[in-house]
Amino acid sequence: MKWLLSVEQESQKKLNKKYCHGGNIRKFEEDYKLNSGKIIDFSVSLNPLGLSNKVKSSILTTIDSVTHYPDVFYKDLKESIADYIGVKSKNILVGNGSVEFIYIIPRALSIKRALIPIPTFSEYESAVKLNSAGALFIKTYEKENFKIDVDKIVKKLNFVDSIFLCNPNNPTGYLIPKDEILFLIKRCDEKGIYLFIDEVFIEFVDEKYRFSGIKEIKKRKNLLILRSLTKFFNIPGLRIGYLIGNERLIKKIDEFQPPWSVNSIAEDVTKNVLKDFNYINKTKVYIKKERQRFFNELKRIKFLKLFLPPSANFIFCKLKDRTSNELCDKLAKHGIIIRDCSNFRGLNNKYVRFAIRKKEENDKLIKILDKWNY
Amino acid sequence: MKWLLSVEQESQKKLNKKYCHGGNIRKFEEDYKLNSGKIIDFSVSLNPLGLSNKVKSSILTTIDSVTHYPDVFYKDLKESIADYIGVKSKNILVGNGSVEFIYIIPRALSIKRALIPIPTFSEYESAVKLNSAGALFIKTYEKENFKIDVDKIVKKLNFVDSIFLCNPNNPTGYLIPKDEILFLIKRCDEKGIYLFIDEVFIEFVDEKYRFSGIKEIKKRKNLLILRSLTKFFNIPGLRIGYLIGNERLIKKIDEFQPPWSVNSIAEDVTKNVLKDFNYINKTKVYIKKERQRFFNELKRIKFLKLFLPPSANFIFCKLKDRTSNELCDKLAKHGIIIRDCSNFRGLNNKYVRFAIRKKEENDKLIKILDKWNY
Repeated sequence: MKWLLSVEQESQKKLNKKYCHGGNIRKFEEDYKLNSGKIIDFSVSLNPLGLSNKVKSSILTTIDSVTHYPDVFYKDLKESIADYIGVKSKNILVGNGSVEFIYIIPRALSIKRALIPIPTFSEYESAVKLNSAGALFIKTYEKENFKIDVDKIVKKLNFVDSIFLCNPNNPTGYLIPKDEILFLIKRCDEKGIYLFIDEVFIEFVDEKYRFSGIKEIKKRKNLLILRSLTKFFNIPGLRIGYLIGNERLIKKIDEFQPPWSVNSIAEDVTKNVLKDFNYINKTKVYIKKERQRFFNELKRIKFLKLFLPPSANFIFCKLKDRTSNELCDKLAKHGIIIRDCSNFRGLNNKYVRFAIRKKEENDKLIKILDKWNY
Repeated sequence: MKWLLSVEQESQKKLNKKYCHGGNIRKFEEDYKLNSGKIIDFSVSLNPLGLSNKVKSSILTTIDSVTHYPDVFYKDLKESIADYIGVKSKNILVGNGSVEFIYIIPRALSIKRALIPIPTFSEYESAVKLNSAGALFIKTYEKENFKIDVDKIVKKLNFVDSIFLCNPNNPTGYLIPKDEILFLIKRCDEKGIYLFIDEVFIEFVDEKYRFSGIKEIKKRKNLLILRSLTKFFNIPGLRIGYLIGNERLIKKIDEFQPPWSVNSIAEDVTKNVLKDFNYINKTKVYIKKERQRFFNELKRIKFLKLFLPPSANFIFCKLKDRTSNELCDKLAKHGIIIRDCSNFRGLNNKYVRFAIRKKEENDKLIKILDKWNY
């Protein structure tokens, strides 16, 4: 089949996982002689409120825990997460960031043909290829606001053994409506196809628009949901993610995971931070308000084309009359880093992504963009 | 071949990686209603001097680093390690503890038939099996002081594609002499066989007896050396290990490693602690002295059979007239945990391992053992 690209056939875009991500401040420090303390980083979409106080206090009180191995079964840690999301401990695995699972899953489930809507997070493709599996990329289109077309996916189910989906999608921010994601979950279940939904940004989504697959876990044999504390709790350095699925599936994946994947500091911080309801609520309220305001401000910029209102904590744009490289360069000179989306499969040098940051930082970005007429 | 056990054929001993290790204090807390603060843990072989001050100060000054992704290339971290061991950065990969590499290597190198001298650390077998590879176990014998017989290994080189070796070996403490390990490295190189040497305990070995494969890295195409900060710097909770090999091999393995494997706290701590020469020297001096003393004391215990003088920071014994389970139970009632070696392939319920701990703790153990006559 022409559209089923094997690892060998497919080479339009060579990906190098380590050059593929935002947050690489070091590169900008070197290239632009910037002082890291003064960089405003819009290239990674993290909670703009900074650290929860519980993170600091937890680290300070548990420094000595580094002299012990983490609990190899992560009993308490899994229970904390289970309480937080409303499932049972046995439905959870914890990992060294969510990306650890992206690499384990294709191997543990012997994935051979994966369907991946694009553009999306590049690690699904990298991980699938490491398993010598083929990837079927389903393109989403600008003219459709990068809608992930569930009907189109369902029509391909006979040709794949798995689907890798990001919801809300990175970098486009597209959020699949509730009835559509439920329909897809049901159809995958009927067909025995693994459905992997990466929900690392879903906690930023408004409750009323948000539909997580977690509620379906018990009923479905082949559904896996990925979550992380990285973005919502602003702790990318600690490396803590988790995977949710039915017990049988979780056990299978567990076999392929090395022991002690989560370090003991992340273990302690997670237990504490998931109970910081004040921080959690403040974040939700802030993001909801600032997302709308920032989006409206960006709409005024003539050389930007925006799509649907953003769902998570980042805003995806197309550039008119200038390239992502030009914009990145322009902003870097002001100490601002944004995500150049040209290395996403399915995009080109016309797309960028901005994290939603503190109001004054967002305003600084707007001000610079506003002045850039030519 | 009868001795080449495939994953399917081999089932004499079912291993569950998560039940296979020392350091599982929680289990003893539950089983014996012990207070974790009062447990003396001889079951994991960590530096008995406790934490280097550099660990605490480093964590305290870099808490905010958790809000950034670790450097995806780990440039500074690799340079620190390169300086410490005297190789180039390009010969190093850093990982989430050394065990991350044990799981990646069989996959990245497409290992099909691995030779593993036993008894040894169980994760080599687990990792090899996950790759659906066969394992050829070469047994070492009590009557030979559990000597790893290099000549015997060399005779099997035509039948395997890789060797997984632990030097000094866990749990027996057997250290391969310099000329023998060099001979093995040379023969593996000639035959194109991957030689993986786990040296996570080698820094505890006396300089004059120690021979590390690191010096051979540049010359050899298929040699990999594994190291860790866990044991020597007493930081099992932080999760930091590293792999050393020639550039081509390191690049190959790098492809299979997810990004951001080492958390940002471990990243900072490592850079600082490797320069703590005071702590490093104190450790070496202490271990050398206390190892000899503790060994001599244990020799007096009538129901223990000891082997060669210990090389690392643990002592391996055989029990006469009683079982490892009885001894573990006896000691647990005194708040002491030791490593029951009955679940090592190639051993039975007659073997235990004691970490070398603080003098007063070692004396407490000796005192209890001394009184246990029946």
